[in-house]
Parts: sequence; structure tokens; C-alpha cells
Amino acid sequence: MSNTLYIASDHAGFALKAELIEFAQAQDLGTHSAERCDYPDFANALAERVLKENARGILICGSGIGMSIAANRHKGIRAALCTSGLEAELARKHNDANVLCLGARLIGIDTAKECVQRFLNTAFEGGRHAERVEKLE
Amino acid sequence: MSNTLYIASDHAGFALKAELIEFAQAQDLGTHSAERCDYPDFANALAERVLKENARGILICGSGIGMSIAANRHKGIRAALCTSGLEAELARKHNDANVLCLGARLIGIDTAKECVQRFLNTAFEGGRHAERVEKLE
Repeated sequence: MSNTLYIASDHAGFALKAELIEFAQAQDLGTHSAERCDYPDFANALAERVLKENARGILICGSGIGMSIAANRHKGIRAALCTSGLEAELARKHNDANVLCLGARLIGIDTAKECVQRFLNTAFEGGRHAERVEKLE
Repeated sequence: MSNTLYIASDHAGFALKAELIEFAQAQDLGTHSAERCDYPDFANALAERVLKENARGILICGSGIGMSIAANRHKGIRAALCTSGLEAELARKHNDANVLCLGARLIGIDTAKECVQRFLNTAFEGGRHAERVEKLE
């Protein structure tokens, strides 16, 4: 896995994305304003970059649900919608998640930051979890 | 959408599934014991039934993350990992979710029941959300 981290959001996630970019040292793939847009466009763009570069990503919409559906449509993307640091850690340990999804209207900034930190700093456990991850594709 | 509701889990979700079957009036697609198994097998089986019958489903594993990744691999499945009733309601209103994912090790029984209830009893809002849902496929 490369160390590159991408971040993208729709309009509902725009403000939280702005708050997380520097903290996460992430490269911004838009949206670039609070104007209405469609989450699948941004999920697809980020998923393609993550797959091409074996990178990681963060996707933000109002609830995180739309982004997690759209991202997981892509073979090789394992997108985890997290509402707590524990979930972000489990997503890495057990599911080898390469995309973290957050719901901007539902999560506080400090919890969002904890999710990012534990997503970035937790290793995949492998073993029996690796067999299950292989079965996903 | 038909009124049929399916439910499935891995070993980690087995006990919560047992508690929810009657409450949700759901048809059980396994697993049928607490013996170790692989969540993608059960996510795939449920996804196929939901798609074939235009039904709805509930998927449960330890965190809900593995199930949500596996289910969303299927075109036409919109699986929402929920930790609160509000998320379940938003998943229906905005994403027309047809599968609810729950994390048995992270959610309490009353919150799980509230998620089921609001997942089953909330209508899709359509409108601009319908355009986005179309873009998922």
C-alpha cells in the first residue's frame, strides 16, 4: 500500500473535508464548493485513484451511507462507514479497509479525527481475515 | 418492493440474529450455529435472494463492516451499515437502502431493534435522491 491518502466529499461533506485535509495530510479530489453535487461522482473518482495507485481514501457525505455504497461497488475497494474510532480500527484489522467513509451531519470533529487516525495507524491482522477478504472478490 | 424480509449473519452475529428474527418477522438464511464461518458467503446468499425477489434484508457480523462491503459488491443492493435509528431512517429516505447491516459486537439490542423498525417503516424520498441512486449503477 502506498502512503498516498486521497479525500473527497459531496456538498454535505464539504466543510468536514476542509477540516480534515490538513490533519490527515490528504490530497483533495473535490468537491470544491458547497454547491449541490452527486456523491457517486466523487466516490467513483476516488475509488479509481485508490485502486490505480494502491493508495487509501476518505469519503464524506451527509450520512456516509451513499459514499459507502458507491465505493464498495468497485472491486478491490473495501470502504468502511465508521462512527467511532473503534470501528475504524476494526475495519483495518479485520477487513483491510482502504477507504474510510464518514457522515458529516452525524459525527463530531474530534470523533472524525480519531477515526482517521486509527484508520491510518492500524495494520491488517491477516490470517483467517485474509481468507474472508479474498472471498469478497 | 415485496414485503419479504430476509436475515443472515456470520457466527459473530448469530446471537443478535436470533434475537431479531421474530421481532423483524424475517426469514432466516443462516448461519445456523455459532461455529466459525465466512461473512461473504452469507452476504452473497442474502443479496441474491433480495435481488431476485425485490425483497429486503438484514445482515449481521461483528462490526457490520464486512457484511456491508460484501453486500454492496452486488449491483442493485444498497446496504447501509447503521449504528442508530436515525441512520436507518436516512438510509431509506436518501439512499433507498434495501439491506440493513448491523454490528453485533457494537450495538445494543434496543438500538438494533430501532434500526430495524425505522429501516422497515421509512419510505424513500425520491426526487434528487433518485437521480443519485441511479448513478450508483
